[in-house]
Amino acid sequence: MTVGLDPDYSRLPKHLLDLDDPIFEFNKTIIDQTKDHCIAYKPNTAFYESRGVKGWQSLEKTVNYIPDSHFKIADAKRGDIGNTSKQYAKAFFETLNFDAITVAPYMGIDSVSPFLEFENKWVILLGLTSNKGSKDFQFTKNENTGKYLFEQVIESAIKWGTNEQLMFVIGATHPENIADIRKIIPDHFLLVPGVGAQGGDLNAIIKHGANQEGGLLINSSRGIIFKSEAEDFGIAAGKAAESLSEKMKGYFHTMQ
Amino acid sequence: MTVGLDPDYSRLPKHLLDLDDPIFEFNKTIIDQTKDHCIAYKPNTAFYESRGVKGWQSLEKTVNYIPDSHFKIADAKRGDIGNTSKQYAKAFFETLNFDAITVAPYMGIDSVSPFLEFENKWVILLGLTSNKGSKDFQFTKNENTGKYLFEQVIESAIKWGTNEQLMFVIGATHPENIADIRKIIPDHFLLVPGVGAQGGDLNAIIKHGANQEGGLLINSSRGIIFKSEAEDFGIAAGKAAESLSEKMKGYFHTMQ
Repeated sequence: MTVGLDPDYSRLPKHLLDLDDPIFEFNKTIIDQTKDHCIAYKPNTAFYESRGVKGWQSLEKTVNYIPDSHFKIADAKRGDIGNTSKQYAKAFFETLNFDAITVAPYMGIDSVSPFLEFENKWVILLGLTSNKGSKDFQFTKNENTGKYLFEQVIESAIKWGTNEQLMFVIGATHPENIADIRKIIPDHFLLVPGVGAQGGDLNAIIKHGANQEGGLLINSSRGIIFKSEAEDFGIAAGKAAESLSEKMKGYFHTMQ
Repeated sequence: MTVGLDPDYSRLPKHLLDLDDPIFEFNKTIIDQTKDHCIAYKPNTAFYESRGVKGWQSLEKTVNYIPDSHFKIADAKRGDIGNTSKQYAKAFFETLNFDAITVAPYMGIDSVSPFLEFENKWVILLGLTSNKGSKDFQFTKNENTGKYLFEQVIESAIKWGTNEQLMFVIGATHPENIADIRKIIPDHFLLVPGVGAQGGDLNAIIKHGANQEGGLLINSSRGIIFKSEAEDFGIAAGKAAESLSEKMKGYFHTMQ
């Protein structure tokens, strides 16, 4: 399980706001309390950038605080022409010590490839996202192949990198599509957001999306970190993470 | 004309590297020397993020240094689920004082709408990009309508906002498509990258893409800012900007 570190400033517990770096203090407590129940953390850059330079300081401190035992995902959804994507790859893989970054596919191969040139780093490409707007373009059917755009994105991208450097974002709100996606990519890891506040069906996702190794990185952000917005937020987050982790184990178990 | 402020650190003139903030010093000189020949500046965030916190300081100083007479575009290509896109909008429209931001369309309406809620601010949505990878997905033909994905993106987005808050990125490397795009959006502004290092045909773009008000924001980045990589880089950039501006005026003139 992945914990999404999306510290919306307007929802931080009030007692943190007088500290020098409320966002980092919040994340530190969340990490301390949840690390035994997850294998990865996923800060979304938007919640740091909204605070400007101070926010980037919080992001840097946060990624450095995540234990090395845990996988570090920058949920940044970047993507640009080749020489520019290379700069983004440097930003997240070298300047900040992330293991993986989410990337947007609209601009095609040369917007994604520069991220794949870094050893032991991962690209997590948007495939089928969890939000309402995923219906606008991702389900467009290709006139020549009859396939959805998200299928075309996945089929193209698996030629650009191996399943040891490339994963896909597949939102938990589309359990009806995940079995078909598994036919295209039986072995790739899937990063699955949308099980908490967005209402995705965890059981259906595991049933149709898990492979023999598990193969799913299920993310919860708001459902864990804002379980309580009072002084007990850390304890509450720890319990929420433990509970989701136990629930997942149960669902995986019933598959055996 | 727009000048792209993409200060690739490895190409900065050597004499700047000992200063406290080489990127800002570089941009300051470029702005001083080019401001009489352009109406807008477009920093691409990748070139700042690659320097981490220091880079975001340079970006903040740069946007504050751009004269108020000029339009300020954050070339950030952001886009995420609704509550997250709202944070990006805050980052670039409130925390940093940009007038416009480039946005990626893959995630659909709720990834774009939060940016359109800010008054007197602009969204510049990726339509048809200038890079090689634009061929991978943007030219996918819709089974139901026979239209290209970039046409579908444009036709959808013009329902989400007015032509006084929404523009489109249309790369200069596709002059053969720009006339068809103008049939869909005769009145919208187009931001056109790719005339310099990427080899787009300026004359053809103006011929097929200009409307009665002009309607084109033509961008050059590397072709201006790295015209010289020696101590005379500012003077060289000013001359390159003036020359491109004159060339554009000539092409516009021959259309009358």
